[in-house]
Amino acid sequence: MAILIRNARVLTMARGPRPRRGAALRELGIVEQGDVIIERERIVAVGQSLSMPPALRVIEADGRVLMPGFVDCHTHACWAGDRLGEWELRLKGATYQEILAAGGGIMSTVRAVREASQVQLAGALAARLEVMLRHGTTTAEVKSGYGLSTEDELKMLRAIREAGEEWEGTAVPTALLGHAIDPAQPGFVQQTIRRTLPAVHEEFPEVAVDAFCEQGAWSADDATLLLQHAGALGHPLRIHADQFTSQGMVARAIGMKAVSIDHLEASTPEDLARLAASSTFGVILPCCGLNLDGRYAKARQLVDAGGLLAMATNFNPGSAPTPSMPMAIALAVRFCGLSPAEAIAAGTINAATLLGLRDRGAVAPGQRADLILLRHTDERMLAYEIGGNPVDAVICGGRLVPPVEVFR
Amino acid sequence: MAILIRNARVLTMARGPRPRRGAALRELGIVEQGDVIIERERIVAVGQSLSMPPALRVIEADGRVLMPGFVDCHTHACWAGDRLGEWELRLKGATYQEILAAGGGIMSTVRAVREASQVQLAGALAARLEVMLRHGTTTAEVKSGYGLSTEDELKMLRAIREAGEEWEGTAVPTALLGHAIDPAQPGFVQQTIRRTLPAVHEEFPEVAVDAFCEQGAWSADDATLLLQHAGALGHPLRIHADQFTSQGMVARAIGMKAVSIDHLEASTPEDLARLAASSTFGVILPCCGLNLDGRYAKARQLVDAGGLLAMATNFNPGSAPTPSMPMAIALAVRFCGLSPAEAIAAGTINAATLLGLRDRGAVAPGQRADLILLRHTDERMLAYEIGGNPVDAVICGGRLVPPVEVFR
Repeated sequence: MAILIRNARVLTMARGPRPRRGAALRELGIVEQGDVIIERERIVAVGQSLSMPPALRVIEADGRVLMPGFVDCHTHACWAGDRLGEWELRLKGATYQEILAAGGGIMSTVRAVREASQVQLAGALAARLEVMLRHGTTTAEVKSGYGLSTEDELKMLRAIREAGEEWEGTAVPTALLGHAIDPAQPGFVQQTIRRTLPAVHEEFPEVAVDAFCEQGAWSADDATLLLQHAGALGHPLRIHADQFTSQGMVARAIGMKAVSIDHLEASTPEDLARLAASSTFGVILPCCGLNLDGRYAKARQLVDAGGLLAMATNFNPGSAPTPSMPMAIALAVRFCGLSPAEAIAAGTINAATLLGLRDRGAVAPGQRADLILLRHTDERMLAYEIGGNPVDAVICGGRLVPPVEVFR
Repeated sequence: MAILIRNARVLTMARGPRPRRGAALRELGIVEQGDVIIERERIVAVGQSLSMPPALRVIEADGRVLMPGFVDCHTHACWAGDRLGEWELRLKGATYQEILAAGGGIMSTVRAVREASQVQLAGALAARLEVMLRHGTTTAEVKSGYGLSTEDELKMLRAIREAGEEWEGTAVPTALLGHAIDPAQPGFVQQTIRRTLPAVHEEFPEVAVDAFCEQGAWSADDATLLLQHAGALGHPLRIHADQFTSQGMVARAIGMKAVSIDHLEASTPEDLARLAASSTFGVILPCCGLNLDGRYAKARQLVDAGGLLAMATNFNPGSAPTPSMPMAIALAVRFCGLSPAEAIAAGTINAATLLGLRDRGAVAPGQRADLILLRHTDERMLAYEIGGNPVDAVICGGRLVPPVEVFR
């Protein structure tokens, strides 16, 4: 049955280049008092006062904002266990890196993930994807990276695929093979490149390969080696760089034509200028700044210099415990220098393009019907209001997401 | 029809003193695998493996946290207009006080409120109360203070009463007669005390009277004068003090036996010690810190010194655009030094007691059935996860709040 959404303020994102670069990031392509018609899983018409197809369900938007579902292009939403005990230590003053050095941080989640079955991991991820969906995220990238062995990385990737197949939204797996260095495995880097990477390539030839380049994690040399091998196998490349310290990874990743460089909190102005001049996306993850140490990426510089920008939650059990793209937007505007329009484009059309999904991120005929109806009539409220869920309704693949069932 | 909520982790808040003071703030009175039975608008039984009354609807909690609905004891949720334009100026570097001095800030909302009718104000507030309810707030204090004239303050208080009567939750009006000084009205302080206060007393004899003591707003002398007159008429007294600068108002308010002193970001250690030794509540409003200038109240000192603490969103169109108590809790734990348990007690049982409502804030027989079921099985997640809505279900006055209707 077709759905008509009537009288919305539609952020079509359908004018201007795709992806957005520099000033074009502010172009939301707004249609006032707009109607949108959906048939099956696609948008078939967008405009004013559309004539209605038969057999139609009607959503009256009353001027509320209708926009593409969020594309959360950087998450670690597949995990087991929790890090609440370690968080209580951090609240008492321990730093993230001190906890990492003491075997906490990523390694504590690695232990829990290794003990979990694929079914358990997929179940935990499915529950989180459901929460993300209710906050407007209809496409989510999900990284492996808590396995740190061939078998456990494959188990994570299979769990992400399994949860994604059951989900109404779209889950895009990424092989984060270089997340940490396992101190218990001598020759871990070589092992990852010679054994894990080929096994992942065999079963998941199309996933992006990613690494976390940082003091105490993967060095720039080791991360470069991993990405070079992955690139030679045809994998798209992504990298976590400059979260705490600048390791010179930005220039290297641009040189390898990486799809994205994520974090950028500690990037030098020269590296941001280099990134802005390249075809590599910068991805900002502002929830880390709030949760860790108050440092944020200088997204304003990247946009003003004409760069490609995307934005994500970084949803994970340690440094970014938030499933909410609206929260990331509210922080990006306060602390990374973006305007609300820029943050919205970075979390929809640009993020979709980064993931290679050109059938979403805009409200236009032929696009997948992943749409969200906000509670607000002004999209700036998405950035201004902070905390809570601003989404009144989510349509995913052409179907309205039903409310949570409570009574049994 | 009765409701049984089965197999929940129940934060009863039913052991220990009421209100909580100092270390007692951490006592959540947890019942594991607990059942709660509701009849009409009251809780009638709390325990393990309760025998079931007939004609029962069952909510299976599956170990999720069930707790009292939030009591948001300090909001300015009744307003007209918006402050999005001014916010964009602030993002570009203007300070809150610069905007105030230029006729923006509170005065821009005052102009919009004066132009709005009582019905318009009540409608706008009703929509916001609905959003707050869906984020778990079942009781909300709402202040006047954007009228700054006898007629407009009465209009606001009537609008709050009108919206509250329609609402499933409980709205508690407060007469914030000393919110700002209207530069267009000579003798504004005297006018407020001699004309507005008696008129408010006549129609709303039981509401608390409040003032904002700050540079550029009400001086400590003027605020004291207003509260002395209000106290003589029998009104409970509240005060906004030390948000930006310490004006010596804390000691004066304690001396007047004020119910609460709210803000406290700039309080001296001596004033916090004085407050901790008194019977006056300190109310922290951490959403301001995130939204304005990164300054937060030192709630840890107040609790460690044995003080009475409550916590609220301060929901308003300028400095705290958040309807979400979970957001306030997440910030209080990160920036005000509270533990999750302390923040939860400050936002439930203590806030209810501050408002004089002893029939809520705990899960115990005879208490009003204002309950929330979290998505989480560990209440620390309420503080750890940041952004989004952690509430799976809200029961208010014994009735399950239904989902938002979308299709027409």
